[in-house]
Amino acid sequence: MTRRGRPGYDLESLLAVAVKVFNERGYEATSMEDLSRRLGITKSAIYYHVPSKDELLRLAVDRALDGLFAVAEEARGVAGPAIDRLEFLIRGSIGVLVDRLPFVTLLLRVRGNTKVERAALARRREFDLVVTELVKQAEAEGDVRPDIDPAVTARLLFGTVNSLTEWYRPRGGLGTADLANAVCAVLFDGLRTTA
Amino acid sequence: MTRRGRPGYDLESLLAVAVKVFNERGYEATSMEDLSRRLGITKSAIYYHVPSKDELLRLAVDRALDGLFAVAEEARGVAGPAIDRLEFLIRGSIGVLVDRLPFVTLLLRVRGNTKVERAALARRREFDLVVTELVKQAEAEGDVRPDIDPAVTARLLFGTVNSLTEWYRPRGGLGTADLANAVCAVLFDGLRTTA
Repeated sequence: MTRRGRPGYDLESLLAVAVKVFNERGYEATSMEDLSRRLGITKSAIYYHVPSKDELLRLAVDRALDGLFAVAEEARGVAGPAIDRLEFLIRGSIGVLVDRLPFVTLLLRVRGNTKVERAALARRREFDLVVTELVKQAEAEGDVRPDIDPAVTARLLFGTVNSLTEWYRPRGGLGTADLANAVCAVLFDGLRTTA
Repeated sequence: MTRRGRPGYDLESLLAVAVKVFNERGYEATSMEDLSRRLGITKSAIYYHVPSKDELLRLAVDRALDGLFAVAEEARGVAGPAIDRLEFLIRGSIGVLVDRLPFVTLLLRVRGNTKVERAALARRREFDLVVTELVKQAEAEGDVRPDIDPAVTARLLFGTVNSLTEWYRPRGGLGTADLANAVCAVLFDGLRTTA
């Protein structure tokens, strides 16, 4: 087998390929051997950049989580009623999802089998609490329907947002703003026309 | 190591354990060896029931898909406007999801790496077309907001429904009807109170 010249990898490009493979085959099912084959470099060349497969996962899910928490922090500074902060948080999270799609996709598939995965789940729960708190405030301010448990509402909202990873592709027809508009229109005002 | 008496398995109970393990560890990452260890029976005892791991997957995802298509068929018979058939389909799908939660969860994680997985994805796409068609009809009848592409609306609706597998547990506080009510309230009428 002849070997052509291969691209060099820095940590960033190595991580991008690793996350792609994790998403295709599953994190658990992917070995460092698989990554080495896919990258076209030796395992020790991978270990030059990262000490373990776990560390690749940690870097990847933190990329997603750091983005989401940055939006949550920004949302805290939005003046006005809580429902506006909630909408800001949803739109911002859709922005993170679109910009960091492979990372968010991987994050959402984490099941808690390792320490790194459990840490990621803990940060996801922390984020969920931020959302639930905003829903509670918006409900107390009379802007959100009071007939659904705020924790359930929060899960439905982010269930819808997270489900975008299953089908949304940035190179398709729908831009980020149109996507966020569609999601917010359905979630805030509903599908039904008010005749 | 002493071995206690183990339960016998029929195909049904074997499938239930296999699906649980697939959901915990990932289908790809689970070997027949893993299943044999978890079931506490030999691999040949498993092969007595099913010819392959693939066949276990096929049985499991068909359990979910058959349920969803049965609801779609039932929805076709619902008289009145399309939006009522759409709501029937969503409520019925939530019923299937709750009743067959491990099977639906597994179905939603299928990525198309094998022939069985690709067949499941093809059936999912067929189901999505049924939903899109209902959204289109409801929009044509003036009952659904016309400012969102019906295919996007359909994806958002079932994105929300499917996301229930991530957090809903039947033994929790929320019954199936309450769950369906909450989902339909948000999706059809929106989160915002109409002041």
